[in-house]
Amino acid sequence: MIKAVDVVDVRFPTSASLDGSDAMNPDPDYSAAYVVLRAEDGFEGHGFTFTIGRGNEVCCAAIEALSDLVIGRDASDLGEFYRRLTHDSQFRWLGPEKGVMHLAAAALLNAAWDLAARRAGLPMWKYLSGLSPERIVDCIDWRYMTDALGPEEALDLLRAAEPGKAERIAEIEREGYPAYTTSPGWLGYSDEKVVRLARRAVAEGYRQIKLKVGDDLDDDRRRFAAARAAVGPDVRIAVDANQRWDVDRAVEWTAALAEFDPWWIEEPTSPDDVLGHAAIRRRVAPIKVATGEHCHNRVMFKQLLQAEAVDFLQLDAARVAGVNENLAILLLAKKFDVPVCPHAGGVGLCELVGHLSMFDYTSVSTSMEDRVIEYVDHLHEHFVEPTVIENGRYKAPVLPGFSAEMRPDSIRRYTYPNGPEWSENR
Amino acid sequence: MIKAVDVVDVRFPTSASLDGSDAMNPDPDYSAAYVVLRAEDGFEGHGFTFTIGRGNEVCCAAIEALSDLVIGRDASDLGEFYRRLTHDSQFRWLGPEKGVMHLAAAALLNAAWDLAARRAGLPMWKYLSGLSPERIVDCIDWRYMTDALGPEEALDLLRAAEPGKAERIAEIEREGYPAYTTSPGWLGYSDEKVVRLARRAVAEGYRQIKLKVGDDLDDDRRRFAAARAAVGPDVRIAVDANQRWDVDRAVEWTAALAEFDPWWIEEPTSPDDVLGHAAIRRRVAPIKVATGEHCHNRVMFKQLLQAEAVDFLQLDAARVAGVNENLAILLLAKKFDVPVCPHAGGVGLCELVGHLSMFDYTSVSTSMEDRVIEYVDHLHEHFVEPTVIENGRYKAPVLPGFSAEMRPDSIRRYTYPNGPEWSENR
Repeated sequence: MIKAVDVVDVRFPTSASLDGSDAMNPDPDYSAAYVVLRAEDGFEGHGFTFTIGRGNEVCCAAIEALSDLVIGRDASDLGEFYRRLTHDSQFRWLGPEKGVMHLAAAALLNAAWDLAARRAGLPMWKYLSGLSPERIVDCIDWRYMTDALGPEEALDLLRAAEPGKAERIAEIEREGYPAYTTSPGWLGYSDEKVVRLARRAVAEGYRQIKLKVGDDLDDDRRRFAAARAAVGPDVRIAVDANQRWDVDRAVEWTAALAEFDPWWIEEPTSPDDVLGHAAIRRRVAPIKVATGEHCHNRVMFKQLLQAEAVDFLQLDAARVAGVNENLAILLLAKKFDVPVCPHAGGVGLCELVGHLSMFDYTSVSTSMEDRVIEYVDHLHEHFVEPTVIENGRYKAPVLPGFSAEMRPDSIRRYTYPNGPEWSENR
Repeated sequence: MIKAVDVVDVRFPTSASLDGSDAMNPDPDYSAAYVVLRAEDGFEGHGFTFTIGRGNEVCCAAIEALSDLVIGRDASDLGEFYRRLTHDSQFRWLGPEKGVMHLAAAALLNAAWDLAARRAGLPMWKYLSGLSPERIVDCIDWRYMTDALGPEEALDLLRAAEPGKAERIAEIEREGYPAYTTSPGWLGYSDEKVVRLARRAVAEGYRQIKLKVGDDLDDDRRRFAAARAAVGPDVRIAVDANQRWDVDRAVEWTAALAEFDPWWIEEPTSPDDVLGHAAIRRRVAPIKVATGEHCHNRVMFKQLLQAEAVDFLQLDAARVAGVNENLAILLLAKKFDVPVCPHAGGVGLCELVGHLSMFDYTSVSTSMEDRVIEYVDHLHEHFVEPTVIENGRYKAPVLPGFSAEMRPDSIRRYTYPNGPEWSENR
């Protein structure tokens, strides 16, 4: 039984350094609406949703509102807990299953999964890998899914992935999971800094980097040319427009970057525009299209796959409703044979998505081909079990839980607006 | 210049009577996150977003957050004001353009339009009808629209509707705009009450009513048969599933109701599922498909039209970002030649959408063919200028503004949780 839900507004003043700057988000302050579920038996579950500053307090208010459905009740049946948070008819009106309420549900659901994995004494990826196909299918909300994938076919997919699972778990523990890095490519960085960080990324073992584009075409071409010259032809360079364009503009701009061999064009237009993504993908082929970090639920991912709108599916750990909805999304991607390359960066997103990709490998896709997890090297110092990269790969987390727990001193210092980093320095 | 933004959480205990009950929303408490913009020159602008109870406080928190972009600044350039509220990069992360933040933007934008119409001394529908095509086009955010409709083509559509406008304005003032009523059909009503209210609706002049369906097929067939027998073959009966079904289920259920001649099937599945609606529409033809009250922005409406997924487009006055976004949606509907039949009911939605349909007639579609505005006869007594129906038609509002203003005594009594209707009676 959950006896208390703590909610904290934690913000980091990242806008000061232009870390995280892109064509749509020039000055983010990476933030978390942070939750601790306190269970009667003494266990805790930590979770959060990620925002970029203003409005983080609205997510906190939404979590407080949903807490009425949590406090004094059990959260160990994770399928039931999901349905309780997302099916409440009055709250549902505020979405449904999108925006602030869904971000809030993500924080609470991720915390409940953290609690379950801690109780099991296992890191999340290994906890998930040990769940039966039946248990996983029961944690998913199949409503609106069955024209693409139903529970019976999902069971078949999961059962087909059982052979070899122990070997894949051992492989993850030994070798980790491949990453790519966005650290060199923020739009606010100088050409010199982009080149320096791109070279460093390759030296550190990355085989893929990403550049932000979409604000000024001449700038994009100059920076892309410099980065390509710095890393050579064999390192993949993805580009990310962060929703900046309409359909025609996306096609034209991507064509103007084609000579530098972009691996994928990411978020070329509105995250809601399934048909727009499909049109862009047809017109920019063979350049690939990736999207998903702002895709708000499984119904939208279902349509992106049905419409053949994406080559890579970029799930986010805290925008859809937590682990449950990401289980649905991983299974949809398997059904449609589209590689999942999670969105990360932000604050704490790397810590979470490593678990999801590792589970995807052990228990769903069983493949790492063309699959990479995004990595950005900032703010990890605030976590109890920070993401560790070795030779361009995520190392497997080992502590029980979802790696979501922030260090208490970081929470205290960066609480908004009264923590000392905000009240004393600004 | 806006010197203050008042925000009030107003809730009506409608769950006590099962007014508003449907297959997804068994016990709504119709509520408004209510806003008053107070301008330096003494004018006020009233607006709100509609919710069904729990979480209304989260919308209020979102309006408070957005108020930082409003207070001390001008709100008279309505295109700029729209972009200010929806393009702020940090707030945008919480959507973008969906959910709680978009509901909050709707309240503020509708209030700013109310303010503008009051200053002009005109009811909103007439104020809008007097704006130049250029002014209207400037109030619309064309981002993500241009693959379906761009500003130049929109200007052409608006200019083509100029001839005869004065006559259409006079016609609206003389005869109003056709309505249909959902009052007979709430799911929580007995068969006897459905029949009695259906007969009364026809006697009052309505030529279309609507029944809620989707919870139990035997119940639906029995109630539909009774209602059809009561009103005869010539009155249109629409049915509304409120998102209850998956695609196959929607097709099967609709087929099982076909013998009673449903005029349209409304919200058969997830409001996010453009491709699902398109599949359903193909499979249930010639029964028509209607949707839109939960469609969260112009990008989704654009796709519903591009995919030929709807026969009727049901815009909502307070779910998308206010008048601005509804101008875009009306123009999209005109381009794709799909009739707009607004969603209403709730609290205050009838008061708002009458203005939008009347403007649609005078200045965009120039047609009332197969166009009806939803009407539900409750909670109108709380408004300064309540919707008036005569012979099954909305009468044209006459007071300056958007008819959004609630009576001060109603606001005081129903403020949640400290107004006397909540603190004393429950």
